Amino acid sequence: MSVITLTTDFGTRDNYVGVMKGVILGINPSVCLVDITHEIAPRQIREAAFLLLSAYRWFPSGTVHLVVVDPGVGGKRNPIIVETERYLFVGPDNGVFSLIYEREQEFQVFKISNPQFFLPKVSNTFHGRDIFAPAAAYLSKGTPPSQLGEQINRYVRFPFTGPEIKENILEGEIIHIDRFGNLVTNISEETLKGFVGRDKEEFQIIIKDKILNRICHTYSDVPQGELLVVIGSSGFLDVSANCASAAEMLSAKPGETVRVKRSP
Amino acid sequence: MSVITLTTDFGTRDNYVGVMKGVILGINPSVCLVDITHEIAPRQIREAAFLLLSAYRWFPSGTVHLVVVDPGVGGKRNPIIVETERYLFVGPDNGVFSLIYEREQEFQVFKISNPQFFLPKVSNTFHGRDIFAPAAAYLSKGTPPSQLGEQINRYVRFPFTGPEIKENILEGEIIHIDRFGNLVTNISEETLKGFVGRDKEEFQIIIKDKILNRICHTYSDVPQGELLVVIGSSGFLDVSANCASAAEMLSAKPGETVRVKRSP
Amino acid sequence: MSVITLTTDFGTRDNYVGVMKGVILGINPSVCLVDITHEIAPRQIREAAFLLLSAYRWFPSGTVHLVVVDPGVGGKRNPIIVETERYLFVGPDNGVFSLIYEREQEFQVFKISNPQFFLPKVSNTFHGRDIFAPAAAYLSKGTPPSQLGEQINRYVRFPFTGPEIKENILEGEIIHIDRFGNLVTNISEETLKGFVGRDKEEFQIIIKDKILNRICHTYSDVPQGELLVVIGSSGFLDVSANCASAAEMLSAKPGETVRVKRSP
Repeated sequence: MSVITLTTDFGTRDNYVGVMKGVILGINPSVCLVDITHEIAPRQIREAAFLLLSAYRWFPSGTVHLVVVDPGVGGKRNPIIVETERYLFVGPDNGVFSLIYEREQEFQVFKISNPQFFLPKVSNTFHGRDIFAPAAAYLSKGTPPSQLGEQINRYVRFPFTGPEIKENILEGEIIHIDRFGNLVTNISEETLKGFVGRDKEEFQIIIKDKILNRICHTYSDVPQGELLVVIGSSGFLDVSANCASAAEMLSAKPGETVRVKRSP
Repeated sequence: MSVITLTTDFGTRDNYVGVMKGVILGINPSVCLVDITHEIAPRQIREAAFLLLSAYRWFPSGTVHLVVVDPGVGGKRNPIIVETERYLFVGPDNGVFSLIYEREQEFQVFKISNPQFFLPKVSNTFHGRDIFAPAAAYLSKGTPPSQLGEQINRYVRFPFTGPEIKENILEGEIIHIDRFGNLVTNISEETLKGFVGRDKEEFQIIIKDKILNRICHTYSDVPQGELLVVIGSSGFLDVSANCASAAEMLSAKPGETVRVKRSP
Repeated sequence: MSVITLTTDFGTRDNYVGVMKGVILGINPSVCLVDITHEIAPRQIREAAFLLLSAYRWFPSGTVHLVVVDPGVGGKRNPIIVETERYLFVGPDNGVFSLIYEREQEFQVFKISNPQFFLPKVSNTFHGRDIFAPAAAYLSKGTPPSQLGEQINRYVRFPFTGPEIKENILEGEIIHIDRFGNLVTNISEETLKGFVGRDKEEFQIIIKDKILNRICHTYSDVPQGELLVVIGSSGFLDVSANCASAAEMLSAKPGETVRVKRSP
């Protein structure tokens, strides 16, 4: 049984997600459908890119990841397939796969253009249903990407700004706030260790007017209600709080600066 | 593998939807369960009817559509099955299938009355679990509707008011606002073309104090942040905005009047 | 096909639930995954315990119930398996299974300790992904609990305070408010009947300044917009309203006292 995941900004109040699943099941009745999230803020391609990045590798090899955050629907942007060693991705060519391009060593991009794999009538406002869902369904049945369209070499790739080193300070930012109020930064464990030194455990992490002095191993390393820094489950530095919301405690929002300073 | 879809006003905070799925899987372990939505506003039968209408035909033939928006649970309303050429519908006889009756040429309605297909103990407050879920599960296994109860000829059918022609103006209304702020009207593409003439591209669409002069093909036909009118993915006239919320821009609510005027 | 249910406080905005499902499908590709709810308020173990209690028995025998409400993740609390006659439960040993211990006659508890059944790298912040999801997946494939770890006799069990009799009055409390505003109490049908007498239909139920005089059979036993008391679908006494929200009408919150007085 093959797996298709779904990541959209459709929400769950409308029937759009259900309709896409209906189309998929009409083409591949034995597929397993898994929601990643449908709560991407409307048209927030970067948020979708991050949530996809931190989710895709946990799925079995062969999984098709369908992503529909598509403010340009019906316009000039291409529908594409990205093929990596273990996975297939389907969605609009609007940069939503930028972090996949960054992470994966080798990948190929195909433009979905063969109308034989579209729904018979293609609307101008819901390609999720008319183009992307059928494409994902055919791929999950084993149709090779090259049958859906030709390989392309030009595709949209966002310059996701990673953390930068400025005057001996590593400067990153909050890229996601989760339900628990954990502040996920764009500073990966590797970048951090490269900066402070692999064996160093002490250094300063600065957010707003707070200075935190080390990476904790787990939330309960500090008393309840206190702030801490951990390497979060996605492999990035998180500012968190034990049994409380760091986002509320710091009134922090995505984009907030986080600085790391080597100990003197 | 057969498919059962679920449309309810149960929300996702409680365990009601999960419980219905547990009951279904106890009867048909190999069914594929797909959520349409559980975010119908409590007891809003008309909203459920519209979301069902614009979703049901995208599912494979043989799909059982289970709808539980049931303010009269435990009272006199009948539990029913509606059988059309390609689908089966299960839910309360409170008008929630009115738009299915309107759209489908031929259908039969059955009253679910054979207690052999109920759960052993039927509560007065949760027929979704005790009557509707088992009925859908048995139907998905191939049990014919006639075994669950007898065919009936009287059932509740709402007079869904379509758009009307008043003094040479086609007058419809907003029937649904989606997550993106698209305003879905009750004016179908066919009704519109019948009114303005099949080849006419220019006419006036009036909502609140705004006049829009044509049907666009896609959102990007207008600059970002501007209003437009399209034939939406459900086949109805939508008032939308490119990369913005028409609902916010117009402070529009369901029930708002939308008028179409032929160009002079 | 075996079933795994998921009950968490992860919400649906992040990708945590999707990631757990990816891990499970990597181990058991043919499992059926069912969400109970992911809207448990962050870290609210008691709420999770109640929603699990009123859901678990509706699933087919052999179902694995995975519960991840885990404020102590990465700390000293054990990951455990609870085995009952018909079900397996997987989650943290923080009291979340207390109501299962209370309801089930016989059960065994195992500490999950065999790293062979963990993901290769275990984080300190997401045992749902690294320990609980794999454990549930292996159990769903038939791996016996004893292979995942040894049986234990000490585990956390909350003293869930049931209703008490004080000066001839049965005093309970609101333990859950559902989407419809139904106030679910901790007074079970059995406790009520034991207190008022099995055949008595008349007695006083007091909440805030309201006195209700009998148990109704269904919502429509009272006019629309009026309060009533029913035995709810979970088998507990509910304070509800016909086509309205009892929670709003009474401004009631979880913890609110509900008293039952025998009629004189």
